[in-house]
Amino acid sequence: VLFSLGAGVDHLMGDPKLPNVPIVRVVDEDLTNRMSEYVVLHCLMHLRQQRRYDEQQRRREWFDDRFQPAAREVRVGVMGLGVLGQDAARKLRVMGFDVAGWSRSPRRAEGMETFSGGEGLTPFLARTDILVCLLPLTEITRGILNRSIFERLARDGRLGGPIIINAGRGALQVETDILACLDEGILKAATLDVFEKEPLPPDSPLWSHPAVTVTPHNSAMSSPDTIAEQIADQVRRFECGEELRNVVDPRAGY
Amino acid sequence: VLFSLGAGVDHLMGDPKLPNVPIVRVVDEDLTNRMSEYVVLHCLMHLRQQRRYDEQQRRREWFDDRFQPAAREVRVGVMGLGVLGQDAARKLRVMGFDVAGWSRSPRRAEGMETFSGGEGLTPFLARTDILVCLLPLTEITRGILNRSIFERLARDGRLGGPIIINAGRGALQVETDILACLDEGILKAATLDVFEKEPLPPDSPLWSHPAVTVTPHNSAMSSPDTIAEQIADQVRRFECGEELRNVVDPRAGY
Repeated sequence: VLFSLGAGVDHLMGDPKLPNVPIVRVVDEDLTNRMSEYVVLHCLMHLRQQRRYDEQQRRREWFDDRFQPAAREVRVGVMGLGVLGQDAARKLRVMGFDVAGWSRSPRRAEGMETFSGGEGLTPFLARTDILVCLLPLTEITRGILNRSIFERLARDGRLGGPIIINAGRGALQVETDILACLDEGILKAATLDVFEKEPLPPDSPLWSHPAVTVTPHNSAMSSPDTIAEQIADQVRRFECGEELRNVVDPRAGY
Repeated sequence: VLFSLGAGVDHLMGDPKLPNVPIVRVVDEDLTNRMSEYVVLHCLMHLRQQRRYDEQQRRREWFDDRFQPAAREVRVGVMGLGVLGQDAARKLRVMGFDVAGWSRSPRRAEGMETFSGGEGLTPFLARTDILVCLLPLTEITRGILNRSIFERLARDGRLGGPIIINAGRGALQVETDILACLDEGILKAATLDVFEKEPLPPDSPLWSHPAVTVTPHNSAMSSPDTIAEQIADQVRRFECGEELRNVVDPRAGY
């Protein structure tokens, strides 16, 4: 059995020397909660215009926005409805956001509208003000966060333009498209935890773009303690002939 | 009947010409949700060290904190367990925080430990890493956020020092004590939505203190639409001889 020490297995899938043994992912509650902390934090920062108030504080300026929308007036679209996406969606709903989800293959999730596949993508994007990407990286999803997606996001929302949050994998995004769409007003802001190249090179224009928040791929890190417990449990299951949990489907790539 | 267009009534209580009629407050779900958005946002900003990552972004520095605590490892203490405090506490618990509450008179709240009165204050503070103040302003609570309180907050927490968030009323806090305690390391950070004098004067040292986040008293504003609906309902109740809702107790002052 191969153990992957995180939620993603894209670093293994492309390896030509990958042996034909089961691959299991770490899916622990701790990692899931941490990802939801990150997603809820950054959705709330955009909802509550924290960057605007940061800037006002720097200028010692007192001005409140009497037309501040409430969470229920803002539509969040979660791409990827695995364990991470479903937990983030649930917590965003508790905070009041109007949440929908999209996944490659159809999935039902309690308390929210879901869309799937190529035909579901356009209506999903058309009702989305904040796009949260928690997709696995596969040959199908590579580069999915590109101009064609951004152009289909809602333009009638309360936040003054569509916003993207990528906490999945850097290779899901096309950074030249993000920068161009920000500058053309097709996107209003972006919060990125992952990048095409990591660490993000010091000369990347993302660092200093006023509408971009950069975090160093730390949206969700499991503690070694919880990883060790989970691996010990899987070893025990394997040795007792029980079914392994969180087994990767090599055809789907996740 | 007097209608107060917000959750607080301290601006009425001191008025010597206050007529002897019932005073009703606006308690609407919209205002409650917005306050919880603010409280959860700022607790998560401290948990996830957003100011540190903002600073790193300015310096184009890539460094992740492998010892980032999870929400369950951080103890939030909510002062004030009215409608606002209870809703904020519930949503903080959904995000995983270890939440307790304090109120002047004993109150039970589902799913969390509660403390009350003078004798409950010290043990409450001793288990609090992030102190969230949503108290009403009365003669008893005036200036309650002072050095003596700050010195009793937990010093063994995972955030490197105690943090305060005041979204109640400015007169609850002693700003010279906040600044001195930040500089002496008794407090690690403060997020303030309300101030002794509002608008916050341009020469206040709070604006530029690196450990202070200033927002312009906008944590929770009701929309005129929801206020109007609530007042219309109260007028209808009064005219039908039904009991009014959210009536202020003038002896308690809230």
